[in-house]
Amino acid sequence: MPEFDIIRRYFKEKAKHNASVQVGIGDDAAVLNTKNDEELVVSVDTLIAGVHFPINTSPFDIGYKSLAVNLSDLAAMGATPQWMTLALTLPQVDDAWLKAFSKGLFTIADQYDVALVGGDTTQGPMTISIQIGGSVKKGKALLRTGARQGDCIVVTGTLGDAARGLQLIEQEHNKISEKFIDRLNRPQPRVAVGQALIGSASACIDISDGLYADLSHITEASGVGAVIELEKIPLSNILQNDNISNDEKYRLALGGGDDYELCFTIEKEKLSEVRAELERLGVSCSVIGEIVQGKHLRLTSAEGREILPDTLGYQHFT
Amino acid sequence: MPEFDIIRRYFKEKAKHNASVQVGIGDDAAVLNTKNDEELVVSVDTLIAGVHFPINTSPFDIGYKSLAVNLSDLAAMGATPQWMTLALTLPQVDDAWLKAFSKGLFTIADQYDVALVGGDTTQGPMTISIQIGGSVKKGKALLRTGARQGDCIVVTGTLGDAARGLQLIEQEHNKISEKFIDRLNRPQPRVAVGQALIGSASACIDISDGLYADLSHITEASGVGAVIELEKIPLSNILQNDNISNDEKYRLALGGGDDYELCFTIEKEKLSEVRAELERLGVSCSVIGEIVQGKHLRLTSAEGREILPDTLGYQHFT
Repeated sequence: MPEFDIIRRYFKEKAKHNASVQVGIGDDAAVLNTKNDEELVVSVDTLIAGVHFPINTSPFDIGYKSLAVNLSDLAAMGATPQWMTLALTLPQVDDAWLKAFSKGLFTIADQYDVALVGGDTTQGPMTISIQIGGSVKKGKALLRTGARQGDCIVVTGTLGDAARGLQLIEQEHNKISEKFIDRLNRPQPRVAVGQALIGSASACIDISDGLYADLSHITEASGVGAVIELEKIPLSNILQNDNISNDEKYRLALGGGDDYELCFTIEKEKLSEVRAELERLGVSCSVIGEIVQGKHLRLTSAEGREILPDTLGYQHFT
Repeated sequence: MPEFDIIRRYFKEKAKHNASVQVGIGDDAAVLNTKNDEELVVSVDTLIAGVHFPINTSPFDIGYKSLAVNLSDLAAMGATPQWMTLALTLPQVDDAWLKAFSKGLFTIADQYDVALVGGDTTQGPMTISIQIGGSVKKGKALLRTGARQGDCIVVTGTLGDAARGLQLIEQEHNKISEKFIDRLNRPQPRVAVGQALIGSASACIDISDGLYADLSHITEASGVGAVIELEKIPLSNILQNDNISNDEKYRLALGGGDDYELCFTIEKEKLSEVRAELERLGVSCSVIGEIVQGKHLRLTSAEGREILPDTLGYQHFT
């Protein structure tokens, strides 16, 4: 089946247009509308089978997650998602797989009003690369560079469930493990939260590689240090009640990645207003520490004792 | 070596900014400026080792070609290239390979003033996916849909050399075969030509899959037919003088792909002005046929005898 037919059969007809789309799938490139008072925000994320999701992940979940992780990047900028392109490499044309993949992809695309405007299908080992585009009011994007001494460090939701899901995926599933695995496979990008943080947060990042690694991107970019109190890191009820050690729970939360919550910094006096706004969005947030002078990211116990992180965070090529 | 270091070491420092870039590599997403009277044009193209370029292609040429094919998509829209993101999947970190790849990539990026604004490096079988963005005056993009009965069908430059290069790549090289292979590995995207065609051409496409396949995308999108005269298809001097049959030369020109010339349609009365403009750009063009009623693409001899194409055009998954 030629490339053109794959795009037409599985993607073109389901690709709903939105106000940003002038010309969608079917020409040499897509043509998109922009607004005078806005900037364009673009990001790309690639998912490789066996690296970014377990080989046996359902095609629905692969489609869903491929877009979710990109939406999370836009969320971390405070941007409004508008369109995406899909570069899909597959070993062969598998009708059932493509149907389920496109169903997962469009389920989340429709939820966030993202239009698929272009694509490229090629034959090879399974690789899904999505580029996402969106908009933000001029000069308002949430960057990594704005964290200042004295700012609170805040994370949304809870951390560690996705990493626990990855541990449990090869085991016999029960209702609890399914919940962990669901957080791994169908992350909820915090798009509305990111938008709500515009004008308030001083810096923001999404937690894809693990809190420790991602927060250190903020401190490096901002030229500051940070102290976080380990036990303030929010864990879900199911992780709190899980039959693993406390150390392991916090190791998962700090280093596991794949949670796609937001980590942001904010002046203390702006916190209560933002917390109330996030509550209206149905999202909890937790203050886990503070931005300090220097350039180190330190972990402490409740008593202020320093905790040395060992192997934390997931890095490619390691 | 972690992902972040690969981007920093091989790409970030060489990534020149241009006026479109507000925030480049190093945040969750790039932030780009747009203009009120312009539309955004985006496209994505993926290159797989062994499919889109021979396994033994030099990393410089892989970098060069990866961007060239994307620039060609923007050329076919009449757009001005501005920025790109790079999704790079590699089996391992190879310093020499990465240096040469980035040199090839930035050689053509600098030539066309394209800023690298984001990227994602992952481990896996070699896959290079570039998304390119650019701008075009509102409503002026060259689409595939505007071809009308009576329009001339025109191609730039010459066709078939790249496909001949692919045939010769495994053989012992001489000065002539190097020229063919150069056209395969370092296509010259017709960006200035595309821009010059705005307001004149009724439809436009770049020739990536072969003239026959690509022209049929125009006729299908425009709801018209086409007649092209085989021997009007422009061949280079080196292909004309090559020691293969005439039929084989035209088969390469019609079906070989990878030439990245433009094929456009235009009203007859607009032709001489455009031809003069293209001459000023140092690019030749040839009228090869005419848009007709119907929906078939027919090939004829100089005497009007119909020629049936056999296996023409390269399609993925066939």
